[in-house]
Amino acid sequence: MADKVLGTLTEREFESQPEVWGAVLDRRESSPFQDVERVVVFGSGTSYYLALLLADLLRTGLGLDAVAQPSCEVWIHPERTLKNPQTLFGVAVSRSGESSEAVLAARTLNDLGGRVLAISCHADSTLVKMADQVLLVPEGAEEGLVMSRSFSSMLLAVQKIVMGESGSNLNALPAAARRVLDKCEKPLKQLAHKTDFQRFVFLGSGVNLPLTQEAALKMQEMAIVTSEAYSALEYRHGPKATAGPDTLVTLFAWDSHRAEQRQLLKDLHGYGVTTLVIGENLDDLAAVSDARVELDSGLDETGRLALNLLPVHRLALETARRLGRDPDLSQNLTQVVRLAST
Amino acid sequence: MADKVLGTLTEREFESQPEVWGAVLDRRESSPFQDVERVVVFGSGTSYYLALLLADLLRTGLGLDAVAQPSCEVWIHPERTLKNPQTLFGVAVSRSGESSEAVLAARTLNDLGGRVLAISCHADSTLVKMADQVLLVPEGAEEGLVMSRSFSSMLLAVQKIVMGESGSNLNALPAAARRVLDKCEKPLKQLAHKTDFQRFVFLGSGVNLPLTQEAALKMQEMAIVTSEAYSALEYRHGPKATAGPDTLVTLFAWDSHRAEQRQLLKDLHGYGVTTLVIGENLDDLAAVSDARVELDSGLDETGRLALNLLPVHRLALETARRLGRDPDLSQNLTQVVRLAST
Repeated sequence: MADKVLGTLTEREFESQPEVWGAVLDRRESSPFQDVERVVVFGSGTSYYLALLLADLLRTGLGLDAVAQPSCEVWIHPERTLKNPQTLFGVAVSRSGESSEAVLAARTLNDLGGRVLAISCHADSTLVKMADQVLLVPEGAEEGLVMSRSFSSMLLAVQKIVMGESGSNLNALPAAARRVLDKCEKPLKQLAHKTDFQRFVFLGSGVNLPLTQEAALKMQEMAIVTSEAYSALEYRHGPKATAGPDTLVTLFAWDSHRAEQRQLLKDLHGYGVTTLVIGENLDDLAAVSDARVELDSGLDETGRLALNLLPVHRLALETARRLGRDPDLSQNLTQVVRLAST
Repeated sequence: MADKVLGTLTEREFESQPEVWGAVLDRRESSPFQDVERVVVFGSGTSYYLALLLADLLRTGLGLDAVAQPSCEVWIHPERTLKNPQTLFGVAVSRSGESSEAVLAARTLNDLGGRVLAISCHADSTLVKMADQVLLVPEGAEEGLVMSRSFSSMLLAVQKIVMGESGSNLNALPAAARRVLDKCEKPLKQLAHKTDFQRFVFLGSGVNLPLTQEAALKMQEMAIVTSEAYSALEYRHGPKATAGPDTLVTLFAWDSHRAEQRQLLKDLHGYGVTTLVIGENLDDLAAVSDARVELDSGLDETGRLALNLLPVHRLALETARRLGRDPDLSQNLTQVVRLAST
């Protein structure tokens, strides 16, 4: 048992993303968002962070009035989260289609007269069977505990629909994903073993912001470590109190305001923090960061969204292995969260 | 020096909240929200979490189309955060009125044709001088590093305006605050010293949700400890992976769905977690929690919002003292965050 390699199932699943993305991008789906104006996207955990990204795509790409909510807030507080429900289009996100809270939230909106689109990897599920419309992404299905390719596959399926004709740009992603996964394996393994990091912080801005929360969750679920997520410059307003030599800060760099990002990275070095930058055209941040992963996709910030998490999957796995933890069997967790009381 | 009592300035300021609230509630302000429809409220750190609460009050209390943003997201990505800026009413929150990012965000909206209301404790400040309208709350001003009474005073000043005639209900708050502060001092000191907690988690739902983020920040700033914040039932979807005997979970209990809150608290006990519940009419959660603070205000969830943080101020102070840390002089922090690069 001492020689068992930890997290092999999780690793196989996140390493399969280039092929899985290729299959997702080959499909032709008609848009489920025609004649839609007001949208609430909901999910739990990773699916909630995906909901935040999807709401953003629907706002910026289709001009819809879209917000995201955790499924539990929809179900518990419909009077707050489902205003004018008859004209509200619900988008329920659940890998399994069996998450109690997604089902309860969808049912709540249905009962109030709103329609529901289910986005899921499993056709034969409670959520999919009850929904008015369905966007199935079976390519993303997983046996593992944590969501990696299911997250990116459901993201890409919606991105392709939202981008319409320019969605063909996304065809560059599978090859770019293969390159990123291959080139980050060794340096991120080294980084994860560099020192006994106690604290992992993820910073981003704009379209990248929900990625910080999903990245922090991956570290918690896979390596059982402390992690935090903030809008990049918010980190200075308090949370940096805990920053020190035991802290690894990962910045999802955005394309504008590089001077401010340089200053932030410099400040972090002053506290003894180690920094990793993930993004595109990072030469101007090289002198002020400890490690970088160039995504090298040629796509804009929105188009290359899914690439940003690939290095995080590797970092979380190698951190888990350093600590002797198995992401395939994380403590306290189950694949589907079912509420005992409902 | 070994006998120095730590955090005396911070303690004096948060203990002064009952008197300060009384002064704030005695004032008569005309509403700055007349003829307003679309609002973006922004701030940084504690002021961002206050912005989230204020946007919620404007939505639910006045029916406005209000959202909150971190100041940096407004300033860095106006094309994403300031849609149709000419008809957008900005509300800039800054204790000092000197936070670089609040000033930059306000200027950005002004330049795009939108009006700005400044909410601040300091009349003689950059933000107040440049704003189109001002809501001054000088009673909340602080010498300390962390925001306690400034947060609650600015919150109450807006709450009173939003509630209109029913705002007189808030007059019960100063006496209730005194009772809460007095009764929680001893038990929360005991709780903070109960064991060597390594992880502090705050859970809430609905109107309480932004309180979880502000509470987590108070622990980071005052005690330099790890803290996290989630919508209560979201905690099951991943973050609980790190929960264990070194974890203190504080639940801001809400009035509905007590069966689900009981089940959550029971599950947490199963992981060895210690639990503290803050709320009203908590008898039905007594058997499944380790400690409780009854707010005992007779007000609804919105009316009693500000009371919830009083026990957190005490918990953070006593945790800092246990760890030998001084909240009056927290590492890495300054009272006002100014950007070097702007």
